[in-house]
Amino acid sequence: MTTQIANHVDLVAILVRSIDASICYYRDQLNYPVVADEQMPELGVRLVLLDAGGTHLQLVEPTTNGPLKEDLDRLGEYLHHICFAVPDIDLAISQLSPTQPVSINLGGRNRRTAFLPSGRNGVRIELTEIEPYQPSEGVS
Amino acid sequence: MTTQIANHVDLVAILVRSIDASICYYRDQLNYPVVADEQMPELGVRLVLLDAGGTHLQLVEPTTNGPLKEDLDRLGEYLHHICFAVPDIDLAISQLSPTQPVSINLGGRNRRTAFLPSGRNGVRIELTEIEPYQPSEGVS
Repeated sequence: MTTQIANHVDLVAILVRSIDASICYYRDQLNYPVVADEQMPELGVRLVLLDAGGTHLQLVEPTTNGPLKEDLDRLGEYLHHICFAVPDIDLAISQLSPTQPVSINLGGRNRRTAFLPSGRNGVRIELTEIEPYQPSEGVS
Repeated sequence: MTTQIANHVDLVAILVRSIDASICYYRDQLNYPVVADEQMPELGVRLVLLDAGGTHLQLVEPTTNGPLKEDLDRLGEYLHHICFAVPDIDLAISQLSPTQPVSINLGGRNRRTAFLPSGRNGVRIELTEIEPYQPSEGVS
């Protein structure tokens, strides 16, 4: 029996210099509603999530210096990563990254999220647990 | 009244050197079923589409020399573009690219598709008409 790891593509993330300067295209021209707009100082980003039917677009704006800001300075804006929703992030990590350690953070929408240390086909892969984090569970 | 242009994210495309060498991760580890596997000699690509719940992942393998093969040689494999499903591609093009001409092709799944000449935030944007092409309509 195959264990179901990934449930669906939760979001596709676009790294942008300024969400305020970028959002009108996605919200007003493509007509995708904004469903979350979060400042995440502990991750050094502002995250805006748009409902793109069946999945989401996420605009990611670095708000502090760090790897994301360096990426932006070096490469410009670009399609940054895909995030797969998983029912159990610990199980998914153990199956998708059995040998390399993975850090779990609290990401947008108060969900446990993790970037896999090895992407695939040049694509950064994030996992997000479908149900928001409940403190009694422990973060990782 | 706002005219609805984009319906949903139809697919997220990944440019790969070899679909055969890449597909097992998406199909067997992430458990996304393959819903189409098409050779498109007129576009110089093989396209494999996986159902990723609500949206699709598309693996794009260049099969002839051309811009995609050059991209691959220069940049390696990467997250290549987003495709938005639209009910009426002519209407969507007229609203999203009112001044620059856009070429419409018959793409995968026998759908009328078009890349917008100007992407957004460094992201290439494709449109695909939701209903497959019916020859009586004319291609463009």
